[in-house]
Amino acid sequence: MTESDLPVVRMAHGRWGDPDRKTVLPAMALEALRHLGARPTPAALGVPDLPTPTSTLVTALAAVVGAAQVKTDNETRWRHTRGYSTPDLLRDRAGDTADAPDLVVLPGSHDEVQELLTVCAELGLAVVPFAGGTSVVGGLAPQREGYDAVVAVDLARLDELVEVDDISRTAILQAGLRGPAAEAKLAEHGFTLGHFPQSYEGASIGGYAATRSSGQSSAGFGRFDQMVVGLTVATPRGTIRLGRAPHSAAGPDLRQLFLGSEGAFGIITSVVVRVRPRAVERAFEGWRFASFDAGLNAVRRLAQDGPLPTVLRLSDEVETAVNLADPGAASAGGCVAICGFEGARIAGRQAEVAEVLQAAGGEPLGEGPGEAWRVGRYNAPYLRDPLLDEGGLVETLETAGFWSTLPALKLAVTEALVTALSDQGTPPIVLCHVSHVYETGASLYFTVLCAQADEPIAQWGKAKQAASDAIAKAGGTITHHHAVGADHRSAYEAEIGPLAIEALQAVKAVLDPARTMNPGILLPPA
Amino acid sequence: MTESDLPVVRMAHGRWGDPDRKTVLPAMALEALRHLGARPTPAALGVPDLPTPTSTLVTALAAVVGAAQVKTDNETRWRHTRGYSTPDLLRDRAGDTADAPDLVVLPGSHDEVQELLTVCAELGLAVVPFAGGTSVVGGLAPQREGYDAVVAVDLARLDELVEVDDISRTAILQAGLRGPAAEAKLAEHGFTLGHFPQSYEGASIGGYAATRSSGQSSAGFGRFDQMVVGLTVATPRGTIRLGRAPHSAAGPDLRQLFLGSEGAFGIITSVVVRVRPRAVERAFEGWRFASFDAGLNAVRRLAQDGPLPTVLRLSDEVETAVNLADPGAASAGGCVAICGFEGARIAGRQAEVAEVLQAAGGEPLGEGPGEAWRVGRYNAPYLRDPLLDEGGLVETLETAGFWSTLPALKLAVTEALVTALSDQGTPPIVLCHVSHVYETGASLYFTVLCAQADEPIAQWGKAKQAASDAIAKAGGTITHHHAVGADHRSAYEAEIGPLAIEALQAVKAVLDPARTMNPGILLPPA
Repeated sequence: MTESDLPVVRMAHGRWGDPDRKTVLPAMALEALRHLGARPTPAALGVPDLPTPTSTLVTALAAVVGAAQVKTDNETRWRHTRGYSTPDLLRDRAGDTADAPDLVVLPGSHDEVQELLTVCAELGLAVVPFAGGTSVVGGLAPQREGYDAVVAVDLARLDELVEVDDISRTAILQAGLRGPAAEAKLAEHGFTLGHFPQSYEGASIGGYAATRSSGQSSAGFGRFDQMVVGLTVATPRGTIRLGRAPHSAAGPDLRQLFLGSEGAFGIITSVVVRVRPRAVERAFEGWRFASFDAGLNAVRRLAQDGPLPTVLRLSDEVETAVNLADPGAASAGGCVAICGFEGARIAGRQAEVAEVLQAAGGEPLGEGPGEAWRVGRYNAPYLRDPLLDEGGLVETLETAGFWSTLPALKLAVTEALVTALSDQGTPPIVLCHVSHVYETGASLYFTVLCAQADEPIAQWGKAKQAASDAIAKAGGTITHHHAVGADHRSAYEAEIGPLAIEALQAVKAVLDPARTMNPGILLPPA
Repeated sequence: MTESDLPVVRMAHGRWGDPDRKTVLPAMALEALRHLGARPTPAALGVPDLPTPTSTLVTALAAVVGAAQVKTDNETRWRHTRGYSTPDLLRDRAGDTADAPDLVVLPGSHDEVQELLTVCAELGLAVVPFAGGTSVVGGLAPQREGYDAVVAVDLARLDELVEVDDISRTAILQAGLRGPAAEAKLAEHGFTLGHFPQSYEGASIGGYAATRSSGQSSAGFGRFDQMVVGLTVATPRGTIRLGRAPHSAAGPDLRQLFLGSEGAFGIITSVVVRVRPRAVERAFEGWRFASFDAGLNAVRRLAQDGPLPTVLRLSDEVETAVNLADPGAASAGGCVAICGFEGARIAGRQAEVAEVLQAAGGEPLGEGPGEAWRVGRYNAPYLRDPLLDEGGLVETLETAGFWSTLPALKLAVTEALVTALSDQGTPPIVLCHVSHVYETGASLYFTVLCAQADEPIAQWGKAKQAASDAIAKAGGTITHHHAVGADHRSAYEAEIGPLAIEALQAVKAVLDPARTMNPGILLPPA
């Protein structure tokens, strides 16, 4: 079973993943929840009634994409409401329909997307680009005030592998392709993209690009923004095509202006990506370190002096004890790192990595923990819904910084979360891991679990704010791979400063003068 | 002798490099010139008289940097006139003073740069950022019309290694540091930047950043824009600081908006760069391939499947025969590739590379040609001045594209140059090499030699236009590592399109509303 064999999951709204898959909470997790004081909070997840859009609107959009591709039914619109942050799920569970789009349209080509954006700008309709729908930062809930309606542009029909260039090892992928579908199509040509974020079963190529996604194999394959060598963007003012060479000195790299632009300038309809031959060998193994600092030192050595495995992760003491990929398994303490190798002739690299890790104090745990992680790698989000049902509040957040800043950054964020939630009477468990490494630094990914308070959205809001403030103060970035969306907007403004925000607003004013593109996402309302 | 032992060269204006170093043309080169019909065209290179700037101007700028740091003498201003393209040298040789700045100011800190930009914007003075002064694309000759004066802001006094972070392996380098000085300072900490462009003896850190420079060790160290993890930019509207982590998903990567911005938005005053331990071992070797296509296939295999040497170059048949690094040496035909290895424990990598190259039809030539290239790697520009003296016209241009496009791209550019120059009665010799490789493509670097016609600037202008048109038509980028400057401006506009240009102009309008920053460079006058 490899990534290209996994099915694309059509998610049930309000719960992660395949609706037919039942995830039962491990006894240990349930016990932990009870210990934290959580009480069951079952939710009704039916499809709510939504106000009907005007026929004028429907007609105007149908003129672009055809009547069959304009959806106004409650179920479709509810499925396009928000993403998958815990606050999103809590709103879904409460039947809050405030973020539901008025219509969902499914263009069939770049030209139809282009025409849609022009029409929406003329009519003053807010446009939210939608493909995988897996945002965890509020990227799918644009501002409503000031717009006649919100139109979700679902890119599902832009699902082609347009071209493979075997010599250059590039492929043109349309934005609506979901992860597993892209891998399956590339596999027919003997290639892989190698991008496997935790949202892989649902997320899309366009979403990867618009949010600067980073996958679990980033040590070997790089971030998604490093895979993109070209892109096509439809903006309300017209189409921009970028990328005539892997690298160029012809001015600023404008590909990097649209990667991470989160629909605020337009819709990325296709990307040219670097692809690689499919792996012929694979090995995943576990390593134990006495402490997080010891493990951090070891993974830094690999990141700086090589060789790098394809997957490299390090859990802290708490996460090691909890073991999300295999909850309930016994832990012998310390911190566990996972090293995964994929490619051709991996044995040499594996031996060299082992030498480095052993010299850094690592204890080899063999393939058992490695395979357990690999097999369970997409499981963690499935645990969240039963945890919510049982009255737990579970959410993740992440940051990145330079190596020398990481210990203090980790401490500051952990303390902020513990203090903010304990102060509300709901002391949390905070887990942390490193999952993306670079020569000069790495990411930190936090998972928080506590009991829901009476107002769980406000409860989490306070914790998130405290964590964001701690990140800013400790010099980290507000997000390593989750993007800005609506949730990180004010932290993002503070991070890059008012002058840089003004420059981005000026770009938006050129490309989206009516400000109909995902308003309120990434950039503040003008 | 390593790169950190090389001196910074204070160039004599109008001739490349150390003025005390006499380069004698090899007999073969002289013979080739005579064969091409060149006749000696000696040039007077004295310092011309320049009009004196007003005392009001001098006083206004002296108020910022102090009177001693405002230079109005002819010699200083002439040394800050233009860069080192062949048309620049031809203008210098003709005593053309049109591009001379009215004043040269030397700020001593970021804050002084910031204040200078504010004052120049208020007074309507065009600002040209200057450090190494080695532009070959007209990047140092801003538009004059519409401005009261042109002020060259020389960053020579911003020459500090501000900080080294041993854990993160980053260093803060000020913009005015020249290549050898930066290496020497980093060497004291055991580090190297690893950026060695052919302009290394004169070029600066700020110039590398502003022009997206790429060095000869790019296979091992990457491009300069890949080394930068943070930067500080002074703009007329204020300062922007970017880079809290190696990578982030917080919006567009704005570092990539300022890298390559060529002074059009502001002045990069310092960068945070990734550094690496100094090499402890080194080996350079030559390989022969039967044809350029065979060699291209071989270097592509290394770029795509690894392992990569630190330096990887492939000369075509003509360049192999001419051998610029060691002119006069005998050639046995075919195409020669240079593989350089630097670092720790290089033997394993060297053996693996040899295996790949041999499987691809390469014949090992041993360390002789490799060492000859290494020792002579900065020599080629020194040949240009004596070639000009002897009536030759020699110039370079470069592009990049995806692997599958390269053979046709090379052919198209070569044909364009041959046709355009032959049509003017001066048939050229055209040399080409690949010197920067990526997984999905590579650069092509062309050197052209012919006899000077009566109007050599116009003569080259026609050839350059034909080459640029051929690059555009064949799908390459107008420049891989020389930047846009004034010379590539119209090709750049065509390459990214009017809407993207409009977006960049909007950024400029925010950061440089008076349009006093390097006007006419990168972007067209508004």
